[in-house]
Amino acid sequence: MSARLLDGRPVAAALRASATHRVAALLARGGGPPKLAIVRFDTAGPSAIYAAGVSRAAARVGLEPVIVTPDADSDTRSLAGRIAALGADPAVAGILVTQPVPARFEASTLVNAIEPGKDVDGATAVSAGRLARGETALAPATALAVMELLRAFGISVAGRHAVVVGRSPVVGRPVAALLLAADATVTACHRATRDLAILTRQAEILVVAAGSPALITREMVSSASVVIDCGINALDGTVCGDVALEVQQVAAAVSPVPGGVGPITTMMLLRQTLDVAERLRSAE
Amino acid sequence: MSARLLDGRPVAAALRASATHRVAALLARGGGPPKLAIVRFDTAGPSAIYAAGVSRAAARVGLEPVIVTPDADSDTRSLAGRIAALGADPAVAGILVTQPVPARFEASTLVNAIEPGKDVDGATAVSAGRLARGETALAPATALAVMELLRAFGISVAGRHAVVVGRSPVVGRPVAALLLAADATVTACHRATRDLAILTRQAEILVVAAGSPALITREMVSSASVVIDCGINALDGTVCGDVALEVQQVAAAVSPVPGGVGPITTMMLLRQTLDVAERLRSAE
Repeated sequence: MSARLLDGRPVAAALRASATHRVAALLARGGGPPKLAIVRFDTAGPSAIYAAGVSRAAARVGLEPVIVTPDADSDTRSLAGRIAALGADPAVAGILVTQPVPARFEASTLVNAIEPGKDVDGATAVSAGRLARGETALAPATALAVMELLRAFGISVAGRHAVVVGRSPVVGRPVAALLLAADATVTACHRATRDLAILTRQAEILVVAAGSPALITREMVSSASVVIDCGINALDGTVCGDVALEVQQVAAAVSPVPGGVGPITTMMLLRQTLDVAERLRSAE
Repeated sequence: MSARLLDGRPVAAALRASATHRVAALLARGGGPPKLAIVRFDTAGPSAIYAAGVSRAAARVGLEPVIVTPDADSDTRSLAGRIAALGADPAVAGILVTQPVPARFEASTLVNAIEPGKDVDGATAVSAGRLARGETALAPATALAVMELLRAFGISVAGRHAVVVGRSPVVGRPVAALLLAADATVTACHRATRDLAILTRQAEILVVAAGSPALITREMVSSASVVIDCGINALDGTVCGDVALEVQQVAAAVSPVPGGVGPITTMMLLRQTLDVAERLRSAE
């Protein structure tokens, strides 16, 4: 038997169309395009590529990306001030600080300088706290992408047992919080978990965000499992996830890497930016 | 076989002695006693009794309790201003807003007016966010009391499977976060969980904070389970927990109600107040 493949690309395409439509509706009501500010530290390397990708995606739906680059002589205080000023600017709907933050800045001070109402990647402590308590919250984009993939394929969450492998603050922990808020029973597993396979085999929904290539093998899933792979690992020049390919022979459904959660992630950033933009415009 | 009873009263007594000693050491270094501000709305009823209890416990270890009562004409804005002013007062080490907040105030605005560095009951979104991410954080006192009871009885947490029943923002969710940060594998169960007994029987540590008398019965635990009961239910004029008495015939260890987690909870408030007070004094 072969697992149903949860292809994220058509889901992302539909989300892009929806975002484009929402921007057009905002522009029709007057005013300029909402801005998405991206604080970027490097001009090369993974974080620069990420910033460029987000910027391109934002522009494509009609948002105005604004790349913010710290001056050579800026310190934590001055950059935090610039980030706070973006929060006060009514034209800015979303603010994103790319990771990793260079050691010369205090990362948590910069992130928590983001106005929580414009924290479209759910990076601040305030957003994490609201999310952890089950309140309405802006959430990390990858965690939201997991929920959106499940929703798009009609996979119900309430009352089901979800097992999350990995407890990073950007994926594992917020995914667990979102699943719990959606009434799943949630088991959080990680490096210190004993007998991981006993737990993963019980999962009706298995979310893997461990950053460990092929961590999940065929013996670790059941034929009832829906497996969502958040891993992005570079291996021998290709990209692979945390779930071994052989799992597709056993599980009920699997999201591929690449092409599963990944394409949806940036769309979640844009969706949250539009949620904020619409709120700002109606408050005017 | 009969379960080991995890008696919280001697644990609380030792914590009280330690707090008294810490206050004395602070006073010996000069300055007045650190203040614990308690915002209280009622002069009768459970929240008034709670405020009086905390106030008495604080005074007993040498802290200075300060009861803050809103004026009849105060609104959310003015009271939030008073709470923020307490945050700026160097003599105040801890701030607590008793629940429930009357409907004429916006509860979350009041709570989030607490300076996060003095949020000794872990009530603000910032504290919840830090806790949810596994960072150092001030945490809700009841959740900390669970961890302290486990520690006091030498029950190791790392690598063990903990099942938490209940997902309230003041107990279930923060206990799950603390257990996860302490390297337990954590399953969060709640009202929408199917087959609760299958999950609770797998627990090496079972924390129950559901607010449902005798929810956990003997069939739902194993002989290896350590059961921590956070329930406080008034039933027929007595107080009982969420765990049926018969569980003591099966489980390895059980915390009683009353006398388990309860006595430790207020001591956790005082301990966090002293942590803050010591930090404030060394920063002077």
